[in-house]
Amino acid sequence: MENQQIQITHSQSRKAKPASDQLEFGRIFTDHMFMMDYSEEKGWYEPRIVPYQPITLDPAAMIFHYGQTVFEGLKAYRTKEDKVLLFRPEKNMERLNLSNERLCIPQIDEDFVLNALKQLVNLDKDWVPSAEGTSLYIRPFIISTEPYLGVAASKSYKLMIILSPVGSYYKEGIHPVKIFVEREFVRAVEGGTGKAKTAGNYAASLKAQEVSEKQGYSQVLWLDGIEKRYIEEVGSMNIFFKINGKVVTPELNGSILAGVTRDSVINLLKYWGVPVQERRISIDEIYDSFKNGELEEVFGTGTAAVISPVGELNWEGEKMVINNGKTGSLSQKIYDTLTSIQNGLEPDLFDWTVEVK
Amino acid sequence: MENQQIQITHSQSRKAKPASDQLEFGRIFTDHMFMMDYSEEKGWYEPRIVPYQPITLDPAAMIFHYGQTVFEGLKAYRTKEDKVLLFRPEKNMERLNLSNERLCIPQIDEDFVLNALKQLVNLDKDWVPSAEGTSLYIRPFIISTEPYLGVAASKSYKLMIILSPVGSYYKEGIHPVKIFVEREFVRAVEGGTGKAKTAGNYAASLKAQEVSEKQGYSQVLWLDGIEKRYIEEVGSMNIFFKINGKVVTPELNGSILAGVTRDSVINLLKYWGVPVQERRISIDEIYDSFKNGELEEVFGTGTAAVISPVGELNWEGEKMVINNGKTGSLSQKIYDTLTSIQNGLEPDLFDWTVEVK
Repeated sequence: MENQQIQITHSQSRKAKPASDQLEFGRIFTDHMFMMDYSEEKGWYEPRIVPYQPITLDPAAMIFHYGQTVFEGLKAYRTKEDKVLLFRPEKNMERLNLSNERLCIPQIDEDFVLNALKQLVNLDKDWVPSAEGTSLYIRPFIISTEPYLGVAASKSYKLMIILSPVGSYYKEGIHPVKIFVEREFVRAVEGGTGKAKTAGNYAASLKAQEVSEKQGYSQVLWLDGIEKRYIEEVGSMNIFFKINGKVVTPELNGSILAGVTRDSVINLLKYWGVPVQERRISIDEIYDSFKNGELEEVFGTGTAAVISPVGELNWEGEKMVINNGKTGSLSQKIYDTLTSIQNGLEPDLFDWTVEVK
Repeated sequence: MENQQIQITHSQSRKAKPASDQLEFGRIFTDHMFMMDYSEEKGWYEPRIVPYQPITLDPAAMIFHYGQTVFEGLKAYRTKEDKVLLFRPEKNMERLNLSNERLCIPQIDEDFVLNALKQLVNLDKDWVPSAEGTSLYIRPFIISTEPYLGVAASKSYKLMIILSPVGSYYKEGIHPVKIFVEREFVRAVEGGTGKAKTAGNYAASLKAQEVSEKQGYSQVLWLDGIEKRYIEEVGSMNIFFKINGKVVTPELNGSILAGVTRDSVINLLKYWGVPVQERRISIDEIYDSFKNGELEEVFGTGTAAVISPVGELNWEGEKMVINNGKTGSLSQKIYDTLTSIQNGLEPDLFDWTVEVK
């Protein structure tokens, strides 16, 4: 794979770029995309950068029927010096292969795909916005393409990378959100696909999201699928609680996603000397700490939102208002530090950023 | 919806039809397909029958990322008198809407889509094969098409129906299969999407299937995701056990699919006066009945295979050989009766078949 040349076909026309202050999340795409194909005979082949365009598939392609697919999400940031930085992209490549393993999709050459990703971002680097809170969202994904209705792993695949200039994930920016603790619907269970970044987990989450939005909540907090007692994730983010000066987050139990932002936050907290534990956390423990006045901050972490403070948790009608519904000082500090590192505004102590040249 | 006219574009060329004895499952498709689109403004619109052809979608279309999709599977059979019969197709339309509800996909007009399906089958009715065990497999499916990377229900969809002439689902025909009782991987859990016919359930099943095949088993038997003790489904079929003259099958607990063949088998057994119960069944109970010599027959039910006898169950290394690895007499009788009704060879006592004219 490493010796394969990436063919580049330049787009004949360039699209108009949206104003930095009018960016939404994931609605506009850049001029080019990367793709390569897989067959049993050739392995991954024909890596190429082509103009962003629709793709054509047989209606029997397995992706439409059995959901054998994985994806990743990461961002490129523009620094004041007009450099373009990626944030820990090798973690995404590593996770893509972990997801591939669970979904019976052939492994990729992580270095090769990361290199292709950099070439693509570099070609479309004028699309990396510069306003505060903006970035270029990068979506690598793999879909199964064999036209066959038997339930079996596909024999052919397509890997693609598309790019989208984005503003903040939440329209509110970094303002606390209201979260509904979900009791009826389940996102994932041990032995399922919860730790893989795959379509079915997100499809399963839509209904709970819809119900909670009707009640004025912007996300749901998932409990474990077995006892409906232990905390898993919030919406499509990992979650952290600051209780009496200590930070806790659910351990990687096999049914939650190993977030790159989650890992970065844990590293930052350790560096700062803030006690942080990865362990099983019950919703009862959170409720008790709230009742005792020890629940100081709650926040979600993810690539799209970076840090998303939680201002209220609704658990079976009990409304836990956290830090008076305001962003906590630790949440703010983490957000400021992470975004500063991502945007090259402060020293990259952990060697997390990678420049695209 | 009911007043909308279905536009028909005839295929200019007709494909060669495969010989009846060379049919596989789900690899060859007929000359035409049905499709219609959905938007928030128009609802379902532009119902049309067009030549079977690839479809073109934006790479950001939600189906490729978040798996918001549902499908159905049913069959058309050719009778000796050259009539074409469908088997309980209204049940599939009803279930499609139940799946839609769980996946936040807009409801369809069941009568309209069933009528469209009949028109399509009628147009391609030369494709309905006549040899024993063959049929025309019908695959209605809905995919989310909005080009948007936010995790939310899509605002646009495409409903399609494609047709595939098929032989037996299992190459072995109605011969007993060996089944591996799965302990590590989980297909679905209460509160998840198990009772919906949606891609993610099938994607989640691939890994266990792959592992069991390497050990010489053709399918896995799924246990519940919570205690890993109660029986759910086998592969992509429902499952029945005949124990000491009585038949039991797992109840519709929210995590298994409500199979049309399952329902038909229960009805047949009741009609014959064979005791049949839908209830929770533990794998321990099955093992005990095996040890006591009371486990007489085991079989899976599904549209693709109709009846699939189980000759061996491997539970943690304990190999339960059922009925000496041979097809049981009740399994055979159910298979013969159902396929005879489906093919119009015996009176349709339950009014299950619908002629396509």
